[in-house]
Amino acid sequence: MSVIDRLTGELSRLPGVGQKTALRLVHHLLKGSREDTMRLSRSLVELAERIRPCRACGNFSEDELCEICANPKRDRSVLCVVEEAYEVGAIERTGQFRGIFHVLGGRLSPLDGVGPEELNVASLLRRIADAQGEVREVIVATNASVEGEATAVYLEGQIRALGPRVTRLARGIPVGSDLEYVDGSTIAQALAGRREM
Amino acid sequence: MSVIDRLTGELSRLPGVGQKTALRLVHHLLKGSREDTMRLSRSLVELAERIRPCRACGNFSEDELCEICANPKRDRSVLCVVEEAYEVGAIERTGQFRGIFHVLGGRLSPLDGVGPEELNVASLLRRIADAQGEVREVIVATNASVEGEATAVYLEGQIRALGPRVTRLARGIPVGSDLEYVDGSTIAQALAGRREM
Repeated sequence: MSVIDRLTGELSRLPGVGQKTALRLVHHLLKGSREDTMRLSRSLVELAERIRPCRACGNFSEDELCEICANPKRDRSVLCVVEEAYEVGAIERTGQFRGIFHVLGGRLSPLDGVGPEELNVASLLRRIADAQGEVREVIVATNASVEGEATAVYLEGQIRALGPRVTRLARGIPVGSDLEYVDGSTIAQALAGRREM
Repeated sequence: MSVIDRLTGELSRLPGVGQKTALRLVHHLLKGSREDTMRLSRSLVELAERIRPCRACGNFSEDELCEICANPKRDRSVLCVVEEAYEVGAIERTGQFRGIFHVLGGRLSPLDGVGPEELNVASLLRRIADAQGEVREVIVATNASVEGEATAVYLEGQIRALGPRVTRLARGIPVGSDLEYVDGSTIAQALAGRREM
């Protein structure tokens, strides 16, 4: 197998990258400078060698504790539970959350054989218990899918038994959208969750 | 800058990959096995270190001569001129061409400062002259764009002076398309180039 075919094959395994796109990327690299390609290669090695799950929350980290868990200024009384580590970034970018996170590593999906044991549920509950009342609120920020909701309902019972309030993200009309294009169940949830002006 | 940010930045420089796609690719790699990421990295190094232009035709090659130029079974009487090395593959995949190639490395574009000196034109003419009449036909397979056509017209005069026939790819209705959706100038060229059934 040629060098070009091998790299094309590797790239086409990435999500959203088909055979043609992969070939286009290879040709782009070949037209560019050798140094650019080497730099990309080195960044990949760094990623593979240096990123690991944070010991406390499961987020991506270059150290034993991620930047958020290691930051003494974060509010340890509010813990936000997300399905995947990359969702931490989505919430962090809002700049509106000063608490800490816990990454489940997926969601409950009995049909796919994913039960609580396959997720970081035990570590979540242990973390809350070990904090001895310091965690006063847990925001269950699982996705608004059927499985995400089921995971939230499951977690709610487990967490509440340990003491903290359990909340979840508001459902409603996305900012900037026309009612006309919003699906009915979202409108229904927005109606049910309506607030005083 | 963090390892994740650095790789995201590198990936977002690729064509068709924005910041969000780059981040999604990074997360895909982080969820996958470390070995997959290392393999991708190694393939990039191989590409940077082992691929170079063929000494004869300018095509991508792992050796001094590309596979096509080094193949004694190829018909050296027909030479196909393309703009970019990746276009060689497009023609090769048809399985209908047994001749050899020459890669220009671009097309004439005076506005961008690309004249004949910036392209592999001198090496093309020298190659035809050195073959002492062995090259009997040159297919100018530049793109069907304004600049591609201008490049073809320029090359035609230069090549014909050396002896070979100069041909170009037929213009016409793409296979499988509805006339209704084909643009007028293509239909006009297809009419002008109509053939006996």
